[in-house]
This record gives sequence, C-alpha cells and structure tokens, in this order.
Amino acid sequence: MTDLLSLVLTLRPPQAAPPPPPLGRAAHALALEALRRADPALAQSVHDSPGPKPFTASGLIGPWHHGLLPAETYTLRFTALTAPVAAAFRRAAEPGGLWASAAALTLAESALRVESAAVGGHPWAGAATYEALSAPWLLSRRAPEHRLALRFASPTTFKSAGRHVPVPLPQWVWGSLIEKWNAFAPVALPPEARRFAEECLALTAYDLRTRMTPLKDGGLRPGAVGVARYTALNRDRYWLSVVNLLADFAFFAGVGVGVTMGLGQCRREAGPPGDEPAERGPRAAPGEP
Amino acid sequence: MTDLLSLVLTLRPPQAAPPPPPLGRAAHALALEALRRADPALAQSVHDSPGPKPFTASGLIGPWHHGLLPAETYTLRFTALTAPVAAAFRRAAEPGGLWASAAALTLAESALRVESAAVGGHPWAGAATYEALSAPWLLSRRAPEHRLALRFASPTTFKSAGRHVPVPLPQWVWGSLIEKWNAFAPVALPPEARRFAEECLALTAYDLRTRMTPLKDGGLRPGAVGVARYTALNRDRYWLSVVNLLADFAFFAGVGVGVTMGLGQCRREAGPPGDEPAERGPRAAPGEP
Repeated sequence: MTDLLSLVLTLRPPQAAPPPPPLGRAAHALALEALRRADPALAQSVHDSPGPKPFTASGLIGPWHHGLLPAETYTLRFTALTAPVAAAFRRAAEPGGLWASAAALTLAESALRVESAAVGGHPWAGAATYEALSAPWLLSRRAPEHRLALRFASPTTFKSAGRHVPVPLPQWVWGSLIEKWNAFAPVALPPEARRFAEECLALTAYDLRTRMTPLKDGGLRPGAVGVARYTALNRDRYWLSVVNLLADFAFFAGVGVGVTMGLGQCRREAGPPGDEPAERGPRAAPGEP
Repeated sequence: MTDLLSLVLTLRPPQAAPPPPPLGRAAHALALEALRRADPALAQSVHDSPGPKPFTASGLIGPWHHGLLPAETYTLRFTALTAPVAAAFRRAAEPGGLWASAAALTLAESALRVESAAVGGHPWAGAATYEALSAPWLLSRRAPEHRLALRFASPTTFKSAGRHVPVPLPQWVWGSLIEKWNAFAPVALPPEARRFAEECLALTAYDLRTRMTPLKDGGLRPGAVGVARYTALNRDRYWLSVVNLLADFAFFAGVGVGVTMGLGQCRREAGPPGDEPAERGPRAAPGEP
C-alpha cells in the first residue's frame, strides 16, 4: 500500500484575477479539508497532534505574482507520509472529490478550477512506500553516493537554538529528515544520523538566496531557495546509505519548518558528472575585488 | 598616523598571456616582499607569528579568466592593520619602490606592470585609524544601525569545530572581526561581541553562492561570494555600536580564513531604504514548486 505520495494539482483560474496573497496557509487548510472528507477522525488527530505532520502542502506554484490568468495554469502540490493520508489524498482526486477534475476551489479569495490531479507523469509527482524507498540503499543494491545535491524549490528555513536560520546546514537538513522519518516510517533509523550529518557531511557548494514568506502576524520570514551540494567526509557505507535514503525522502517530507504551509519543498538534484558546480568566474563588477 | 590602509594597485600586462593560476599566494608573497624591503625584522615577525596577520592580500581582480590582455587593467589590493605595515606598503608605492608606477611585477609566471597605486579615489582603497573608525560609533555621534549588509567580494569561508564552512553566519563573521580587532587595535573591544553576534544578530537575507579556490595541495576549497544582510534582534546601543564598528573594520581586516591569500575580501554594503532585498519572484522553473 502506498504510504508516500506526492500529488500535483494543475489549476486554471476561470477568469483573470489580481495576484493572490501567498497561498501556503490556504493550501494547508485545503489539505486538512481533504482529510476531513475522507476520515474526520484522522483529520482531527492530524490537526491536534503536536509533532511533525504526516503531510506537506506547497504554496501556489506558477506565474501568479502579476495576477492569475485563465491562459495560464498553476499548481499545488500535496505530499502524504502515511498510508491513511495518502489514501485520503487519492480519494480527494477521484470523481466527486474535492480535487476531482473540474472541481472549483477557492483559495483565500482566489477561484481556481482543477484541470488534473497527477501522482505520476510530473517531475514533482510520485508514489512510493517506505520499504521501496529504503530497499536500494539499505539492502545494499546500490553503492551509496558520497556527494549529493538538494534543490530547495520554496523558501526553506530551520529552527536552531530558538532562532530561525535560513541556511541548509547538513545537521539541520538531515536532522529535520530523520525526525520525520522516525515519526512515520514503519522501521526507524538511528537518530545518530543527525550527528553523522553534523560531523561528516560538509556543505561544499551552493547557490542560494533568501526569499521572504509572510507570517500570520504580518511579519516576514526569510527562507533559502536554490541548490546546495554536500560531500561526505566519511565513507562509512551504512551511514552514507542512511544519508542517501533520507535525501530521497526529502521529496515527500520536505525540509525544515513550515512544510505544511508552502515552505521547504525539496528534492534531490541529479549532479552533473564530476558533481562540481560550474565555475562561473568572478561575480564582482570590474574594479571590485 | 595611519594604521589602517587599503592600497589598490592597477596593473597592465606588457603583452597578452594565458590565464594565470589564481594569484592569491603570489600576492601574499608580494606583500611580504614589500614588508621585507621596508623593514626586514617586521617582515620576519609577520611571517613567523602564529596569530592573525596584520595585512590582507587579494587575488588578481579583473577579467583574467580568459587570459591577460594589454588592453585591460587588473588590480591587486593590499590592506594593512598596523602603522608599521601601512608605512611599509606606502613606501612600496613610492618612486623606486616595489609597487612604484611603471614597476615590473612577476606574479607566479605572469608579468604585470604597475600603472598606479591608490590609497584613495577608488571604492576599495582608503586609509583610516582605529581611533577615527571607532569615534562615530563609540562616541555616540552616530545612532547605531540595527540592520546592515556585507558584500563578500572574494570567496569567504570560516573554520568551525575543525571544519571549513562557507557560510557567513553572524557569530563567525563577527568572531573573525573581533579576533583581528583585538590583535591589532590600540584599544580592545569586549570579546563578548562574538556572543552578541551569535545570540542577537540574525542572518535575515542573502544572495550567496560558492566559488572554489585552489589549495596548495591541489584540492579545492569553497568560499561564499555575494551579499548577506543581518538584523539585530536586540537594540542595545553599545553592542550595536560595536557590531557596526566591526562591520566597518571588515573593509581593512577581511573576514574569515585565508585573507592574506585572496579570500574574505569584504565591505559593508549600503542598504537601500527599507533595507529589504527586492522580491525577485519565484526562481524555480514553471511547473516546479
């Protein structure tokens, strides 16, 4: 049974509309509504439980910053980390469901119509199981890579020592992933994975910038978007396998805080052969160091 | 007497030449040679002392990546953090000196001729004293700003827990600055400035990427280039003044490791009114979160 799902909704506005506010919170509410329709008790427990949530929701993806246009499509992405949530999301996409084809959605005050709901055939859609995700790494069929890259597609930030830090340091990225894995996977991984990341993974290259995300109280919180590359300084096969597995898991789990409201959308990035970022030459203007 | 100096050499190759290797190490040697000519004992003590060095040297700045062209000029920048070093650098730029106008330099195997040596009239040149740098902040003539930005113009990296991390977190940036200030300034600042930076300065926005710098052993080390913005969460006037003063000091001191070999060239960046980075909209390709 699928317990890991990534569902991509393609949406089109029935008419032109001004730019909506960021819709991460509205997408969060929409995910809870899909759960509620399938299983009210599940929705309640997901809503009430204090720990990591078994789903993520993206903000509205697409060229909405200058307004919604009927000629354009936009996407929302929902991921599920448990079988009941995955089943509820699949059910929402079935005929008659909340996300069924042609269903009308209102996000904040923006009207959007569902064109399609995909769990495959889209680079950000997919389905898997914890077992299937683990097998290639933990059953040693695949040599673990010691270099890997992550793309942070929406603003990503971490809480450390009570502060938000918008920098994907290895211990925060893998610390966030191991916490989620162990909250929902049928077989736990050693929590020392975080320490391995802290001591044995180096952030070796990146191209990142911050983007601001609005908070409930009207403030702004920065998150990092872009690509980061990591290199293991220790080639221990077991720990490298765990690190690689968790990097794959990021596709479903997201990374960092706020992943149920649009933040932390993340996926593994295939590295070019050699895995070093292209030398782009100096960035400073002529005459500057 | 000037004890803080930033001297910019404008150089022109007498003939076209292939791209040189990175010249940070050659510039380091050139700085030591300027010291040796002015004061052999000083050069020896600078060379032998284990702590922070009282100078920095940039790599070759300019469009050298595709080769050196006589139609182009290139620059090298040297900064001094003590009066004797500043005097030696000034002397090197005088007629007959190592860096005098029309002097021929060989850096690694690249021939370059000095066109001019500037300590003013160039955005990266300047002279000051510790006292003059401190006065506006510590004598309270100027209200300390709680938001400031730094531009990392050459790859910048820090050593933390025995590892190099190419991320300008506040505690590492200001930790590096306070260490240098207290090594060379006539009046020390409280070393708790590092703790203030760690606990009360947030990295609130940035646009950074890594660039690789070659090591002696043939390896590569990443450093960050770009702009980072910091916001103080605590508005204590004294600590904010220290933070601002040290940010000004970065122009002379550089930031992080390797500043005598081209790394860590840094200066304060004037923020736009409002000080928030421009919203650039989503960076992901259409169809990606």
